[in-house]
Amino acid sequence: MIITSMDAERCRRMLARIGYGRLACAKDNQPYVVPTYFACEGDNVYAFSVEGQKIAWMRANPRVCVEVDEVAGQFEWETVIATGRYQELTDAPEFRSERALAERLLQQRYMAWQTPYEILHRRQVRESGPPVFYCIRIEHISGLSAKPESLDAAPF
Amino acid sequence: MIITSMDAERCRRMLARIGYGRLACAKDNQPYVVPTYFACEGDNVYAFSVEGQKIAWMRANPRVCVEVDEVAGQFEWETVIATGRYQELTDAPEFRSERALAERLLQQRYMAWQTPYEILHRRQVRESGPPVFYCIRIEHISGLSAKPESLDAAPF
Repeated sequence: MIITSMDAERCRRMLARIGYGRLACAKDNQPYVVPTYFACEGDNVYAFSVEGQKIAWMRANPRVCVEVDEVAGQFEWETVIATGRYQELTDAPEFRSERALAERLLQQRYMAWQTPYEILHRRQVRESGPPVFYCIRIEHISGLSAKPESLDAAPF
Repeated sequence: MIITSMDAERCRRMLARIGYGRLACAKDNQPYVVPTYFACEGDNVYAFSVEGQKIAWMRANPRVCVEVDEVAGQFEWETVIATGRYQELTDAPEFRSERALAERLLQQRYMAWQTPYEILHRRQVRESGPPVFYCIRIEHISGLSAKPESLDAAPF
């Protein structure tokens, strides 16, 4: 197995392409990690969620970590890890345009998944109140790519 | 989408069946999450790793979180989240039998994946020094299971 580092641009492309990973937050040094769908633009990761433990903890401590992986086999995988800060995109005027951007990117993302975003969104509002839109501002990103050694030695 | 809670026994079975997930640790309230292979027995999650940031952080703060998910589609998924404590399985006499158990369970697990555990293990020792064997003692486990509503309404 040959493991190589991925540069930041390749890491950002992988995050954006997959759009599904895990978000870790922490409270009193207890980490908590949940699966999350998201959309990306540059160093911003956009997502929305109903209110709950994750949102409460990120409000209290904005330090978070996002992880994405893609595993073809034990010796063939890629993984990206990004640390950054939680920023809630409230209704306040200073977040209006970015919140609209987040909604548009997420809507496009859900359409790419052939998911009825509008239905999901309306149902969440009905059942759990308005969702919380937020952004993870990436401060550091790194990734590793592994491939089987035998492929490197192959003559093709 | 109908979301239901999974009981602890079902959560443990899912962790054990998949044997691949993410492990989150934290230092100074900064979470860090990485993909990890593991094997389970009861409330113990066994894994090994080369020395690095993850091991250093878990030694400094044993509070961790393990996450596993399985996604068939946007409306059909299962996820398990377990919090617990890191326990390093050193060479000390009090860990000898549990360390042997961990090695045996991981070896079985790797064989199930048709992965040459021995080769991987020997290469790690050669390249990075002896791996660190550890156990996550699960203290709390919960899970959610989602399925599409339409299936429930279907007459078959």
